[in-house]
Amino acid sequence: MHTLTHFRLCPRSRAIRIALAEIGITPELVEERPWEWRTEFLALNPAGELPVLALEGGLVLCGSYAITEYFAGLLENMQKDGRPAPLFHGSLAERAEQRRLVDWFHGKLNREVTRELLHERVYGHLMGEGGHTPDTEALRAIRTNLRYHLGYVNHLAHERRWLAGDEMSFSDLAAAAHLSAIDYLGEIRWDDHTAAKSWYARVKSRPSFRPLLADRLPGLAPAPVYTDLDF
Amino acid sequence: MHTLTHFRLCPRSRAIRIALAEIGITPELVEERPWEWRTEFLALNPAGELPVLALEGGLVLCGSYAITEYFAGLLENMQKDGRPAPLFHGSLAERAEQRRLVDWFHGKLNREVTRELLHERVYGHLMGEGGHTPDTEALRAIRTNLRYHLGYVNHLAHERRWLAGDEMSFSDLAAAAHLSAIDYLGEIRWDDHTAAKSWYARVKSRPSFRPLLADRLPGLAPAPVYTDLDF
Repeated sequence: MHTLTHFRLCPRSRAIRIALAEIGITPELVEERPWEWRTEFLALNPAGELPVLALEGGLVLCGSYAITEYFAGLLENMQKDGRPAPLFHGSLAERAEQRRLVDWFHGKLNREVTRELLHERVYGHLMGEGGHTPDTEALRAIRTNLRYHLGYVNHLAHERRWLAGDEMSFSDLAAAAHLSAIDYLGEIRWDDHTAAKSWYARVKSRPSFRPLLADRLPGLAPAPVYTDLDF
Repeated sequence: MHTLTHFRLCPRSRAIRIALAEIGITPELVEERPWEWRTEFLALNPAGELPVLALEGGLVLCGSYAITEYFAGLLENMQKDGRPAPLFHGSLAERAEQRRLVDWFHGKLNREVTRELLHERVYGHLMGEGGHTPDTEALRAIRTNLRYHLGYVNHLAHERRWLAGDEMSFSDLAAAAHLSAIDYLGEIRWDDHTAAKSWYARVKSRPSFRPLLADRLPGLAPAPVYTDLDF
């Protein structure tokens, strides 16, 4: 069995959990708290970053980039039944657009919203007594950035059936992974972004998404909207 | 002719300049100062990030990830003459290692060293009067991180012929792109890292690297070691 080292609300880990489920792989999950910099984890991935997928055969894939491109290479462009592969598919131009958006969500959205929000509201909480207290000024800036990003997702969802085009790709899974972590914390006003809401409802109701909706952090319950499929 | 929008010392732009030269493509270069957030540039790439490659046919590739994977897909695994393709090559496991290292340099090294160093020493300088004055404490932290990363490159260069294995890959170009920007600023003590030095000397002497050695920033001359092939 493959083993995925992840953290429950880490967006890059979540994207890989959904992607693996979409291609029919159920790894064993091992949780890591990346801010602890444990020696054993650094021996697995010297970068100290999540997720890490240890394949049954012994090969260790470190990071979202290496994992997704490994499976994209394995699955190639089209599945045997003629449906588009669930990670990247179509012409080189279409695949470039799918990857541009993955970069947007794992790069820009992460830097400007998800990473900072988790830092302010989750990691400090889990560290307990000695942890970080949320900074009101920082939260205000993060929420301003979030409105901009939701506007962009809304624009894409309004123009296209899926975020990168006609078919679902890893860019949808990456975006949904980030938004799901943010949504757990109750930070999204979905009714202000109706096209994004209807796109997210479609991703959220996929069987691959279900295990994420069951995630709970100790002492930090999800917002009621988080698990509601009809939000 | 293709057009590459770049900034002279931006490491991700540099990596693409070298990669395109390695596959025999000479784009027209257009410089952008990414901190100015110009409307025309944001129309080209709404993420406001470099590099951007506009192909002759009209297709625009935004960001290092979309550009490298576009050409990796175009070139496939092996070149016609049987030599490994210059971006990613070999088995899926070997390509995963090449991509893990690209992620390391464009992710971790960039975040912990290159981006911060350019912020402290270059962008502020180019902004002129109203610009940022280098922060001594920040520079000290960046230099500590740099020693750690040079140690890691040295370890890889000691164990392997190229950083990811027996053949040069995009991971070497990405690493060299970052180190070249840092080296322009005279921040690297090469004699403390002899395996990294001998690997970098090999990359630096490639014809694809030559245009980068001719780069000059207004009012900020490179360290003497920067252009020296026998440093």
